[in-house]
Amino acid sequence: MLDICLLGTGGMMPLPYRWLTSMMARCEGVNLLIDCGEGTQVAIKEKGWSPKPIDVICFTHFHADHISGLPGLLLTIGNCEKTTPLLIIGPKGLERVVNAMRVIAPELPFEIQFHELRENEEVIDFAPYKIEAYKVSHRVTCYGYRISIDRKGKFDAARAKELDIPLKYWNKLQHGETITDGDITYTPDMVMGEARRGIKVNYCTDTRPVPIIADYAADCDLFICEGMYGEDEKEENAKEHKHMTMMEAANLGKVANPKRMWLTHYSPSMNKPDEYIDKLKKICPVIETARDGWSVELGYEEE
Amino acid sequence: MLDICLLGTGGMMPLPYRWLTSMMARCEGVNLLIDCGEGTQVAIKEKGWSPKPIDVICFTHFHADHISGLPGLLLTIGNCEKTTPLLIIGPKGLERVVNAMRVIAPELPFEIQFHELRENEEVIDFAPYKIEAYKVSHRVTCYGYRISIDRKGKFDAARAKELDIPLKYWNKLQHGETITDGDITYTPDMVMGEARRGIKVNYCTDTRPVPIIADYAADCDLFICEGMYGEDEKEENAKEHKHMTMMEAANLGKVANPKRMWLTHYSPSMNKPDEYIDKLKKICPVIETARDGWSVELGYEEE
Repeated sequence: MLDICLLGTGGMMPLPYRWLTSMMARCEGVNLLIDCGEGTQVAIKEKGWSPKPIDVICFTHFHADHISGLPGLLLTIGNCEKTTPLLIIGPKGLERVVNAMRVIAPELPFEIQFHELRENEEVIDFAPYKIEAYKVSHRVTCYGYRISIDRKGKFDAARAKELDIPLKYWNKLQHGETITDGDITYTPDMVMGEARRGIKVNYCTDTRPVPIIADYAADCDLFICEGMYGEDEKEENAKEHKHMTMMEAANLGKVANPKRMWLTHYSPSMNKPDEYIDKLKKICPVIETARDGWSVELGYEEE
Repeated sequence: MLDICLLGTGGMMPLPYRWLTSMMARCEGVNLLIDCGEGTQVAIKEKGWSPKPIDVICFTHFHADHISGLPGLLLTIGNCEKTTPLLIIGPKGLERVVNAMRVIAPELPFEIQFHELRENEEVIDFAPYKIEAYKVSHRVTCYGYRISIDRKGKFDAARAKELDIPLKYWNKLQHGETITDGDITYTPDMVMGEARRGIKVNYCTDTRPVPIIADYAADCDLFICEGMYGEDEKEENAKEHKHMTMMEAANLGKVANPKRMWLTHYSPSMNKPDEYIDKLKKICPVIETARDGWSVELGYEEE
């Protein structure tokens, strides 16, 4: 089971009743956060989730509305007596930016490990998550993230019997171990079916609607995407500042065909994101104008 | 008229429904802020006050809960198209700390001027405010601030007539100008009475209850003071972390005898600050356990 919460839906600046855009994931007791603007730690508490065991933070880019809440969150995590390392992932310059901001949070009871993204696309394994980062198109270097929980194939008991594999090895093979018994070697692929559909969430803000976003959002369980402006006449504005309109996001959704799609990162000038929903649903029927604190529990498909 | 708003009453970390401790003053279109933790810009908007013309920010010290909201506020002020300089006052190291934090707010359309406090007591004139900073006793260098609006004496028309001062000079003398007319020099003190009682607000958090706080709070219109803990058994805790209990604050209030006294900077563990009010009022009858957003309009006394 993967729990996802869209902690906030704002862009540029935090507002009363609208936190800055940020997403939290929980799976098997390991917590992941994407972006941390001013107030994100309050949004976590408001939702009733705990900042205690945040294990990995992914930054899309270093504009203040996506990272300004980091020093406060680090101190709050420290006050929760975390002692295990925290992994922070982000574009080139990550360590320099985070260390500069830590002028007001110099002492922490846990280690910070950095993973600076250097390639256009990277994969980071952080069990149980597979984290895929892909470069998008903003005024500064910016990445989208796809967070996946992979799922193994089914164990084929009939095949195991056929191959005379002793029962005592079945469990180990199911967990991916290779076993050598005298001259014989048993490998998981002998008894495991093809990997089944896992869970995939794609998260992307602060970019023009480049095709790679739809590639990563294809067939996802949830696609969280920037929809900064609603009015048609704001498209020029979006182009100039390298943001995305709701209609542009809907067109990405149409191509990607995710199971669910949530818009976020609304301009402070947008009072009622719902206003545009009918028009958007004509392009992408599963699209929704998300609100702060929306969450969903994503499970494997029945099989 | 001096408008004061206590924007938040929290200490350590922002909470849902409790912003970090910070105070805003408005007088004659000039706006002053003391401290700016994570979320202070939201608290300003929630109150309905504008961050547009913040002209001076005073920092008590550089712990994150008092300064972490600065980069976001600077960008928001910038978005309001401020072009006049912003003065920032704070302890030694101010420029280094602010510049480090500006890694995520490098480009602003206005100049920042710094005033680093070096003495135990300093006075900064920033019309219409007189800003007095005084060193208190925390784990790091920390200052309290007294914000005053001075009031001139009354113009003595009878005396001006007696001295044969031409009518055309009266207004200038009232506004503090010295006038030379041929061989004769007229000075304001010839016609102005003694300075009358102005308006004084004292603001002090994150310190042990040292006597200088009561000196600066003496006879103030409003004394805003830390009251981090309420329970008697927390006094040791307060001593260890160099904070102040509500009872210690009340005792300062008793000595200082201000017209109003508001407690603030409550520990996140304190759910109901009101719980202690009866006990506190026995020591200092004007004391109140303030809440986020409390504000007051302070005027000159009738005369």
